[in-house]
Amino acid sequence: MLGTVLYGPGDVRFEERPTPTILKPTDAIIRLSASCICGSDLWPYRGLNEITEPMAMGHEYCGIVEEVGSEVTSVRPGQFVIGSFCLSDNTCPHCRFGFQSSCRQREFMSGAQAPRARVPLADGTLVATSDLPADDLIPSLLAVSDVLGTGWYAADAADVKPGSTVAVVGDGAVGLMGVLAAKQMGAARIIAMSRHKTRQALALEYGATDIVTERGDEGVARIQELTQGVGADSVLECVGTQESMLQAINSARPGGSIGYVGVPHGVALEGERLFFGQRRLLGGPAPVRRFLPELIDLVLARKINPGKVFDLELPLAEVAEGYRAMDERRAIKVLLRP
Amino acid sequence: MLGTVLYGPGDVRFEERPTPTILKPTDAIIRLSASCICGSDLWPYRGLNEITEPMAMGHEYCGIVEEVGSEVTSVRPGQFVIGSFCLSDNTCPHCRFGFQSSCRQREFMSGAQAPRARVPLADGTLVATSDLPADDLIPSLLAVSDVLGTGWYAADAADVKPGSTVAVVGDGAVGLMGVLAAKQMGAARIIAMSRHKTRQALALEYGATDIVTERGDEGVARIQELTQGVGADSVLECVGTQESMLQAINSARPGGSIGYVGVPHGVALEGERLFFGQRRLLGGPAPVRRFLPELIDLVLARKINPGKVFDLELPLAEVAEGYRAMDERRAIKVLLRP
Repeated sequence: MLGTVLYGPGDVRFEERPTPTILKPTDAIIRLSASCICGSDLWPYRGLNEITEPMAMGHEYCGIVEEVGSEVTSVRPGQFVIGSFCLSDNTCPHCRFGFQSSCRQREFMSGAQAPRARVPLADGTLVATSDLPADDLIPSLLAVSDVLGTGWYAADAADVKPGSTVAVVGDGAVGLMGVLAAKQMGAARIIAMSRHKTRQALALEYGATDIVTERGDEGVARIQELTQGVGADSVLECVGTQESMLQAINSARPGGSIGYVGVPHGVALEGERLFFGQRRLLGGPAPVRRFLPELIDLVLARKINPGKVFDLELPLAEVAEGYRAMDERRAIKVLLRP
Repeated sequence: MLGTVLYGPGDVRFEERPTPTILKPTDAIIRLSASCICGSDLWPYRGLNEITEPMAMGHEYCGIVEEVGSEVTSVRPGQFVIGSFCLSDNTCPHCRFGFQSSCRQREFMSGAQAPRARVPLADGTLVATSDLPADDLIPSLLAVSDVLGTGWYAADAADVKPGSTVAVVGDGAVGLMGVLAAKQMGAARIIAMSRHKTRQALALEYGATDIVTERGDEGVARIQELTQGVGADSVLECVGTQESMLQAINSARPGGSIGYVGVPHGVALEGERLFFGQRRLLGGPAPVRRFLPELIDLVLARKINPGKVFDLELPLAEVAEGYRAMDERRAIKVLLRP
């Protein structure tokens, strides 16, 4: 089988890999209907995360179950399934508390930029649809696996409610999904912070009511201006830098909430400023499993179309070009077809 | 009038001060029924906050209104009133959102370790009782002004709910009030972290179910042990040091909440650890005004007895001894009688 391996900064190879097999009785093997490249894949691709050994890439996935281990009871071969990028048993106290991304058995998915993949903890991780979905829904179902689930968690963590004023920091795919999530949750006003025309257009399509092109302190000043000096009730931080985190915190009103899902790189927060700023913070890897059933239903009912975030589709064999396109911001998010 | 002034580390003087007068039409002048010394007064007293000029001390107060400015309509001379240590107009968007401690007109009370004090923003800050309260309720009503209101906010910010497992970091007066608050909010289990016998006893009286004497990583390990490796649903951080903050964060379960009310001194939080820890954080100066009516009612109905936290009562003239007693941890909290 050919699969995607990252060897070093900028060095993505599509090369021969062992065909996945059942290693544990709780595993499933799936044949991917589609995979994609994540914004977080760019951190090691850009050399911002250390690469100590060749990494099998890809953690977003949906497809047909081919084989299951002897202990798997909730999915069976032939079913179409979607799983979270965080693998979880969905039975431990953290899972039952709705934080499957902190499951006691947590693992992170890998190797999904390939035609087949092994999914550990299949019972706790995968959700099957009752029928095989229509082909045109595949991109949206794939999006649920991480990018939509993560944007949704950002909005949930930021306590978005009907009538809320929401600001979204970051116009990558996750930020755009955050806009979609805020809209679904009933936000009255959604301010997308974006300086790229195509991303602005998609943000507006997903429900943004305002676009702010400024960043940093100027961005914060614009949010203050748009909210009569109050600040946003909820802010979704979807980048992960020091600047974006401070921009998010400072864009919220006192007592407002920040949901941060950009994996922090070099972020440090000063206690006294946090204290007197008096904003609520919750972040982390998204517990997508909590949201999977609801999000799958919304997609199958065609109430949301998160798949539009894929603005470039490539054959899996051209995965390296996909990384380049995202790295150079020629594409928001790249769908890969096996 | 004689009042309390801090000149430098350890240098508290009870000396002649100008008698407070109405300076703005929104002011009230009150004759204090009692005042007290706050744990936060010890920061400058110990030289841990810089003292650039002599400071009129005291921000916790209750008493009888003597005079009001021309624009004050909600309280009148002769009434017994309690106010928050944070002065607020209670009408701005932040106040209406329940965060009066971030009021657009926010000021911090000062000069209340004296027989009389000026309370700015009287309409938004003070709450009057319908009758003059019984003398024995004065300590508890005074406690509402800050120490109880702050402990209450810590529990509120930490999202304590009926049935919650709660840990309280810090056995100062605020931590003890946090125990009381968690109990009132229906917590099923309240773990007080304390190594002082008298404070442990009061914590147990206020509703603590468990005492943990270990600190830092050992304290965290004990909390994990007591919660079958899950962690607490809610943690109240009532100290403000780097060690106590990390102890609080690490004692909570993933998805759990930390309410932090100890003013941070030298606290820095690393973004990536916060992210993967996945705990909810909310802190800041307590919006006591939000809780005043409810807490005053609980005291007047004798359902709670926060005044027991005062374990030393002194005449106001002996305020310097009060500071020494608290600094040396001979007293939990000192009540001052004018």
